[in-house]
Amino acid sequence: MAGSSIGTLFRVTTWGESHGAGIGAVVDGCPAGLPLCEEDIQKFLDRRKPGSSQFTTQRKESDCVKILSGVFEAKTTGTPISLMIPNTSQISKDYSNIMDSYRPGHADYGFDSKYGFRDYRGGGRSSGRETAGRVAAGAIAIKLLENFGITFLTYVDQVGPVKIDESRFSVDEITKNALNMPDSVAAKEAEAYLAEKMSEKDSSGASITCKIQGCPVGLGEPVFDKMDAKLAQAIVSIGAVKAIEIGDGKSVVSATGTSNNDAFHMEDGQVRTLTNHAGGILGGMTNGEEILLHIAVKPTPSIFQEQKTVNRQHEDVTMTIAGRHDPIIAPRACVVVEAMSALMIADALMQNAVSRLDNLQKVYGLLDR
Amino acid sequence: MAGSSIGTLFRVTTWGESHGAGIGAVVDGCPAGLPLCEEDIQKFLDRRKPGSSQFTTQRKESDCVKILSGVFEAKTTGTPISLMIPNTSQISKDYSNIMDSYRPGHADYGFDSKYGFRDYRGGGRSSGRETAGRVAAGAIAIKLLENFGITFLTYVDQVGPVKIDESRFSVDEITKNALNMPDSVAAKEAEAYLAEKMSEKDSSGASITCKIQGCPVGLGEPVFDKMDAKLAQAIVSIGAVKAIEIGDGKSVVSATGTSNNDAFHMEDGQVRTLTNHAGGILGGMTNGEEILLHIAVKPTPSIFQEQKTVNRQHEDVTMTIAGRHDPIIAPRACVVVEAMSALMIADALMQNAVSRLDNLQKVYGLLDR
Amino acid sequence: MAGSSIGTLFRVTTWGESHGAGIGAVVDGCPAGLPLCEEDIQKFLDRRKPGSSQFTTQRKESDCVKILSGVFEAKTTGTPISLMIPNTSQISKDYSNIMDSYRPGHADYGFDSKYGFRDYRGGGRSSGRETAGRVAAGAIAIKLLENFGITFLTYVDQVGPVKIDESRFSVDEITKNALNMPDSVAAKEAEAYLAEKMSEKDSSGASITCKIQGCPVGLGEPVFDKMDAKLAQAIVSIGAVKAIEIGDGKSVVSATGTSNNDAFHMEDGQVRTLTNHAGGILGGMTNGEEILLHIAVKPTPSIFQEQKTVNRQHEDVTMTIAGRHDPIIAPRACVVVEAMSALMIADALMQNAVSRLDNLQKVYGLLDR
Amino acid sequence: MAGSSIGTLFRVTTWGESHGAGIGAVVDGCPAGLPLCEEDIQKFLDRRKPGSSQFTTQRKESDCVKILSGVFEAKTTGTPISLMIPNTSQISKDYSNIMDSYRPGHADYGFDSKYGFRDYRGGGRSSGRETAGRVAAGAIAIKLLENFGITFLTYVDQVGPVKIDESRFSVDEITKNALNMPDSVAAKEAEAYLAEKMSEKDSSGASITCKIQGCPVGLGEPVFDKMDAKLAQAIVSIGAVKAIEIGDGKSVVSATGTSNNDAFHMEDGQVRTLTNHAGGILGGMTNGEEILLHIAVKPTPSIFQEQKTVNRQHEDVTMTIAGRHDPIIAPRACVVVEAMSALMIADALMQNAVSRLDNLQKVYGLLDR
Repeated sequence: MAGSSIGTLFRVTTWGESHGAGIGAVVDGCPAGLPLCEEDIQKFLDRRKPGSSQFTTQRKESDCVKILSGVFEAKTTGTPISLMIPNTSQISKDYSNIMDSYRPGHADYGFDSKYGFRDYRGGGRSSGRETAGRVAAGAIAIKLLENFGITFLTYVDQVGPVKIDESRFSVDEITKNALNMPDSVAAKEAEAYLAEKMSEKDSSGASITCKIQGCPVGLGEPVFDKMDAKLAQAIVSIGAVKAIEIGDGKSVVSATGTSNNDAFHMEDGQVRTLTNHAGGILGGMTNGEEILLHIAVKPTPSIFQEQKTVNRQHEDVTMTIAGRHDPIIAPRACVVVEAMSALMIADALMQNAVSRLDNLQKVYGLLDR
Repeated sequence: MAGSSIGTLFRVTTWGESHGAGIGAVVDGCPAGLPLCEEDIQKFLDRRKPGSSQFTTQRKESDCVKILSGVFEAKTTGTPISLMIPNTSQISKDYSNIMDSYRPGHADYGFDSKYGFRDYRGGGRSSGRETAGRVAAGAIAIKLLENFGITFLTYVDQVGPVKIDESRFSVDEITKNALNMPDSVAAKEAEAYLAEKMSEKDSSGASITCKIQGCPVGLGEPVFDKMDAKLAQAIVSIGAVKAIEIGDGKSVVSATGTSNNDAFHMEDGQVRTLTNHAGGILGGMTNGEEILLHIAVKPTPSIFQEQKTVNRQHEDVTMTIAGRHDPIIAPRACVVVEAMSALMIADALMQNAVSRLDNLQKVYGLLDR
Repeated sequence: MAGSSIGTLFRVTTWGESHGAGIGAVVDGCPAGLPLCEEDIQKFLDRRKPGSSQFTTQRKESDCVKILSGVFEAKTTGTPISLMIPNTSQISKDYSNIMDSYRPGHADYGFDSKYGFRDYRGGGRSSGRETAGRVAAGAIAIKLLENFGITFLTYVDQVGPVKIDESRFSVDEITKNALNMPDSVAAKEAEAYLAEKMSEKDSSGASITCKIQGCPVGLGEPVFDKMDAKLAQAIVSIGAVKAIEIGDGKSVVSATGTSNNDAFHMEDGQVRTLTNHAGGILGGMTNGEEILLHIAVKPTPSIFQEQKTVNRQHEDVTMTIAGRHDPIIAPRACVVVEAMSALMIADALMQNAVSRLDNLQKVYGLLDR
Repeated sequence: MAGSSIGTLFRVTTWGESHGAGIGAVVDGCPAGLPLCEEDIQKFLDRRKPGSSQFTTQRKESDCVKILSGVFEAKTTGTPISLMIPNTSQISKDYSNIMDSYRPGHADYGFDSKYGFRDYRGGGRSSGRETAGRVAAGAIAIKLLENFGITFLTYVDQVGPVKIDESRFSVDEITKNALNMPDSVAAKEAEAYLAEKMSEKDSSGASITCKIQGCPVGLGEPVFDKMDAKLAQAIVSIGAVKAIEIGDGKSVVSATGTSNNDAFHMEDGQVRTLTNHAGGILGGMTNGEEILLHIAVKPTPSIFQEQKTVNRQHEDVTMTIAGRHDPIIAPRACVVVEAMSALMIADALMQNAVSRLDNLQKVYGLLDR
């Protein structure tokens, strides 16, 4: 499992399973001098934490982050920042029934095939808990990006058939409902829909919007590490994500060049576009407009109905999953999407800083600005 | 522009601009002993080449690949395989009008902002020609994967409003029409639609399906380098791609766990799923089913109408693009999607080979099989 | 500080400072199925631990390692193995006098210049304690390599002017004296020499030999990642190492081709060399002979005499270092050299496993062996 | 053979064999805006080229470099710079006798074992010609570093038993003799020694000094990517290098802290050291003093005497090498050492530029300086 690290200069490595000692992340390459304390990270973990609503798992992790290294006198030192979130609420017996059988929609079968066996407790490394490390690391990226005026807004825009109505859009509303929807009316409808699904021992898919504002022009490396390509990797690497769209996304299929091109024009001395079909990225580089992402999240695969599957002995069996599972993944995934996006933007910001000789000369004091 | 390389073990670095000496790729890490000749690569480049139809650029590159290293006595030696496709048809005057103005929908503005200036001839590094290097490298990956029974099928499934009808699906048809559609009726309708757009000096978006069959179970590293995450990076890194979906993709938003889970069952002694909503990937690892990707490709931004934009001096101007441009990107992009997918699968296949101690022991002859 | 990770497939990331919460390492990519418990790691940390001799720091860390993830039912799962060694013996006041002044021979000045400030407690990230993470990670590599018959022997061959006499060489002796020398007579002389240096508030340099036996032929990638090149990086990355020699090392300067070439011949059905001037590596690849490394380790820079230096305000000052410091670095560094070597060999072993098509086919069961 | 790339931000990938189409390198990540033409590179290749002296191979390659991409209007564009040096002087028959037998001191046996077969013509990828790509890429790094006042001086300081006398040291002399020695008297003695060895069909080892001046303080990442560790990898990755020393190198073994520490003091407002035992690097970071490296280069293994060896069929045989081979490697390797050092310094310079928040802010214009 090489592949537990992401990023070139702002580089994160995560570790940990659902039922081990904890979940952790090491952030290597965060610039020195960034003010940072545990509370800066904790507030993002709190957004990921199961709340008190009926739509979130009854597993209650305190999800309390510790900074183990890399910060001295409340500032990052440039050395690796080690973060740990101890597991405190493991109930191993909850998971005993999945030891032998492969849960549909889960990674169980893949793990056994790939590695010969698996830590079956709570999904092991494939548990949603793995994302706690991402969120902790991403919180540092977000703190870094604040210094450059780069901000994030992430919310659920659709739950099952219920979509938000842009005319009722309210940023404030996002944190006021259990589903992180920016439309109180839609949120209520979605809650009713979800309650129905839960009563049917079923779950629901949903869709997330992530908007990133304030990026300087030119972030992203123009070939394989395009800004949108790295965002795509980072976001699709979140379990349950099945589609990502940039800007107009899928609807470009039926668009024409005339309708899809964003005309440039000057606005307050800035190069801007009149529209933003591209979602802030052209040729893999940011163009200064809002980055706009839409993400499709599948329904929670852990449903409480009896399901057909096979066991480790490769026999047909049925299984019924017990335990603690959200009936919807997207609301808690919003902060994970934000974190992963921030990691990619921070890395691109650092890489872009050395793309020109004159920038390098500025850093080394060889150029008057 | 770090970011011209992709892959961990099967690693490709591309170089070249539209109007330089040529386009190239270096493949480092291809296993030794693979039979390989230029024709193995040329046939994929020929699929990318503008054909004789009205829907492709009138630029006629011979796109003739040379293997410069890494092959001896018709087999790969394990050393880097250097590939070069000389540029032969540059007409620099074609592009003189875009030297100063930023083409809407293109990377021009980003390049100038990021690097301080740009090679404005034909889009430079951002030209579609850059993908020739990807295709050449991908052809080697495809050749490698054939040894493992892994095959690819890629086609256009929608052009503007015209979708294929699955009941008329024919693999043979794909290569028989200029649009790479597997449905002759839809292809004709799409051609008519495109002809109309061309007459309006406009262009069209389209959608590509890529199906990958024969993958062993367990490809993909379960966290940041999930199989679908790496496919997402690789495919979104192709210019003009604005969305990628895995399996049911965007439609999971309105799905439920009951409808979306793929039940496992035994079939001819194999673990299989009854449905394939997941598109062959669970928890970031292949599950043995067909990998199913849908890719949205934006309309060609180079349209021949007058467009508003700004110039390098940051003044509002209008510009009219001349030159040679396809009115649709997707048909020629099919082979690029296939190539990029193959690169990621080949890399995952190699990484997965060392995921278990017993596999390593097999290689070193320490385990009876 | 990107640069806290090393290895491509067997990849280690370390974190931690002398006086933070602890020292840690994350091993990503260790093959699944390797039996592993904390004791396997602890025994190597115990070799690094200051002993009870007069030649080691009086700081007494228990250096107790915890495995936080990646092991289930006493075997590695293929997921990242997180290791932590809590700091327990920090006495911050010890280090207060080095807060403002730059210790000669230390990284203090570099840290302040690079990062703008530094964690001055005990050397921070530059402390010798950082190597505990390397040793912990290396212990896993050593455990892995045992399965392939690869073993390590590391010892001090010279302390100041005192060299071992090969005629008295005894493996058993190495662990019987405080200096890890394989010659009891030399060890006694060296101890006397060291005692004298200590009485003079001085310290001594020393030399380490590392022998690696049992490597299969062909480890190492033939250009930039040559086996010896990666060993050189890994070992020179240990603080205080100022030279590394492979095989005959520096003495090749006055050698001739006739004296330096190792003739191949057949021995018990194996290709062997009659001599081993090359130290087991030819053209960057192992040739099946013993890998032989010699490493020069500088004297402990923390001496207790008054020294000239400058302070953070860039004024000439004098300083006297107090605290707990070994008068010689090499004996405790032996296990670090061994650990770093093992990490590189393990990584090369894994990379080499996918260097041939037929090896890949073996793994995927497509080839009879 | 992953491992044909080196560098994180200033990243070089080389390709090519002795008897293929040519030798090449792709430099990805070179900052945009650097003036660059083929002559900037050619002059370094000319230093590597066999000269007219009796001590160099009679193979006469023109070694003419072509820039295939990444440069526009005489400046780097930020896109990958592809360099190619066509092979023009291959005489395949020269090498027919080494097809079956393993040359002692060469990589032949390793290649066959690792990859199953090898390109036996002229050493293939292991040929000294491979270093032409390194030199071409390094020339760009050297050009970049000139902008920061960083310069290199590389020469041969010992040939067999003949050492230079520092009292006769003359920079100008280096280019005046065939052996690149800065002491005309020693050069003459060494030439006589070499002529003797040649008459005996033998070859000689030698030693290279590389001095790097003008580095800013703080280059190098303090753990695994220490400046000296990366230099060690880069230089040991040059075929025939068997030892590298930093600063006092091996002689630290018999030094004491008192003699080895470099006292800091103020000099013309700069922090300097009174001595430079450390060779310009402390704790893996540059300290502003001259970087001092000594490199031991083995004798040419291709000697013209009959040698014992084994063949591919694993039989004992004797072989006599014919062909064109320098009797000493070091003189032509000087420029390779310089190139590899420059690549590492350039990469470190770029990485270090983003090590602090305030540097990043400077680049993005957020900090008045």
